[in-house]
Amino acid sequence: MDNVSLLRDSLDAISGLVTEATFEFSPSGLILKAIDPAVVAMTVLQMLPTCFTQYEVSSPVKITLNLDYFLEVLKRAKQSDKVIIELQSDKGNLKVAMTGNIKRNFVVSLLENPDKEQKVPIPEFVGEVVIDNDVMHEAVKDCQMVSDCATFKASPQSFTITATGDLNNVKHELTKDSPSLKSLTFKEEQVSKYSLEYLEKVIRGDKVAEVTKLQFKTNYLLEVEYRAKDKLSLTFILAPRVDND
Amino acid sequence: MDNVSLLRDSLDAISGLVTEATFEFSPSGLILKAIDPAVVAMTVLQMLPTCFTQYEVSSPVKITLNLDYFLEVLKRAKQSDKVIIELQSDKGNLKVAMTGNIKRNFVVSLLENPDKEQKVPIPEFVGEVVIDNDVMHEAVKDCQMVSDCATFKASPQSFTITATGDLNNVKHELTKDSPSLKSLTFKEEQVSKYSLEYLEKVIRGDKVAEVTKLQFKTNYLLEVEYRAKDKLSLTFILAPRVDND
Amino acid sequence: MDNVSLLRDSLDAISGLVTEATFEFSPSGLILKAIDPAVVAMTVLQMLPTCFTQYEVSSPVKITLNLDYFLEVLKRAKQSDKVIIELQSDKGNLKVAMTGNIKRNFVVSLLENPDKEQKVPIPEFVGEVVIDNDVMHEAVKDCQMVSDCATFKASPQSFTITATGDLNNVKHELTKDSPSLKSLTFKEEQVSKYSLEYLEKVIRGDKVAEVTKLQFKTNYLLEVEYRAKDKLSLTFILAPRVDND
Repeated sequence: MDNVSLLRDSLDAISGLVTEATFEFSPSGLILKAIDPAVVAMTVLQMLPTCFTQYEVSSPVKITLNLDYFLEVLKRAKQSDKVIIELQSDKGNLKVAMTGNIKRNFVVSLLENPDKEQKVPIPEFVGEVVIDNDVMHEAVKDCQMVSDCATFKASPQSFTITATGDLNNVKHELTKDSPSLKSLTFKEEQVSKYSLEYLEKVIRGDKVAEVTKLQFKTNYLLEVEYRAKDKLSLTFILAPRVDND
Repeated sequence: MDNVSLLRDSLDAISGLVTEATFEFSPSGLILKAIDPAVVAMTVLQMLPTCFTQYEVSSPVKITLNLDYFLEVLKRAKQSDKVIIELQSDKGNLKVAMTGNIKRNFVVSLLENPDKEQKVPIPEFVGEVVIDNDVMHEAVKDCQMVSDCATFKASPQSFTITATGDLNNVKHELTKDSPSLKSLTFKEEQVSKYSLEYLEKVIRGDKVAEVTKLQFKTNYLLEVEYRAKDKLSLTFILAPRVDND
Repeated sequence: MDNVSLLRDSLDAISGLVTEATFEFSPSGLILKAIDPAVVAMTVLQMLPTCFTQYEVSSPVKITLNLDYFLEVLKRAKQSDKVIIELQSDKGNLKVAMTGNIKRNFVVSLLENPDKEQKVPIPEFVGEVVIDNDVMHEAVKDCQMVSDCATFKASPQSFTITATGDLNNVKHELTKDSPSLKSLTFKEEQVSKYSLEYLEKVIRGDKVAEVTKLQFKTNYLLEVEYRAKDKLSLTFILAPRVDND
């Protein structure tokens, strides 16, 4: 792996939700599924072997790591370093070797795999909207000025993100002719509300992709997907905020 | 208003002194007067219609806003955004629309106007000194190393800012031949002391002007004026620190 | 002194260890010796008159200063300022004058000289290793991820820095062919452990030199030396961490 940024940037977003993660390596690539302790957000990362300069996994293996430390190690790689990640099953650890002007080895201890596998639901949606990454960044920052949640509303003509505070409110609107709106396939209006605290963590994943794909339904889950073609997909699923009044 | 920086930078300095502010819009421009709760500092902002790409005010109107939130909204404008500020009297709010790649609306709630108008005194001075903005910045930082107040001293020949601590002291001196001294009109020596905490806030206003104009008198008020010709003036008046010993 | 950076950068590293320091000025230059309160680290700074544009000391003089404040003053110098440091023995202070666009004077009060002189031991070593400055920076940061101390190991062929945590560990290795290893003169293997907290402070001194010279011996002192040829040497001596088990 000459360039660790895809793995590092994906894990950086995921580390906002969980502190430990189980990686499933197989000949066809790497899968990571995680659910945050509050069960508000789920994430699935899939990386194809093409994400790595070299990828040698002969049989499936599942390992659990402290995500924060593993990520901290990956962040220590310099751009010019060649990075080799090697499972040392017998020693119960993962060796991360970085070679540049000097040779550095980081040993990351394996944790016990959890007893049960994470079951990530497969949501059903009725439309999607694809937008530039920075729209979500601006919208989350703007909305956080007045509230802790944002309302997503999609119609056949427009996609809006609004937040309403006690005194003030904020509205982002993208219409069919906005250059930042890449695709909009909703046939009927859908409205749902999501936590800005979680959205703020999720959008850290957008470094791996050029656009953000959003799917949602009234008072239902939101799926945020980042995709690097033929390389990886990083998906987050957020529970809606449903008002009790 | 294609460029919100004049308004934003002026309000940024004023927001160091007050949290709410009353804006008086009239066909001849905008006036804001404010006095900080401790009654140590007063400020007057006057902006001519020329500060705005378009300025449409048919009759005088006075509105009071939470300055911090209004400023936060203005800071969210991107350089390329077109910003329209519109009073929606019937709805009791101000609408700030930013249009660029996407369309964003911020609704800023109006607060109740205060019962009585701010009376800002018209001080009388005996001389003025005009200096480069960065002189004040350096002087405030230097003086803060040893004290919480600075002594301003002007004479026909020189202008000095000094601070004296328990152990150490600091002195800034500008003489007639200093390139950073643009003008000095004092006929007699004047000495007065001002709070560095307030000065630190006041000098944030210097972004709107190229030079800083100071007027003061022994144990009397200090007036700091920032002026953008044919556009705006931003004035701060500080009470002196008078030693009781 | 047109450029205060040598003095400022040396004192910046030293200020991590002590808050007061005694400077010995003599016609042949400046010497500063200091021992940190916990007696884990010692430092010796020697600056030749060549470090200064002009250096006028007719007879030896010893002064003690609050290092933090003196350093803060030096940091206020702008690159283009001419800086003059003048001892005003009669007034019990040091005057630091900075002249550029404006004239600034800082008066730094002298403290009482300590009764007894700092005795810095002259350690005996059996080999040295010279490396690029950034190797130490990276090693210290990497090792701090897993522990509060680092193990230095030198052999005729290689120099390694390792840190071992409860779960994870880190290893930096430089061999004879590493471009960042400039010199290695150990004839036998030496292994010793040092505090990362102190190393982090010491390496701030590397701004004054192009390379870092390290000398150490098994369970013995470490000497870190930064040298600017014909100008200054800045040396730190660290006590080893010896395990009691």
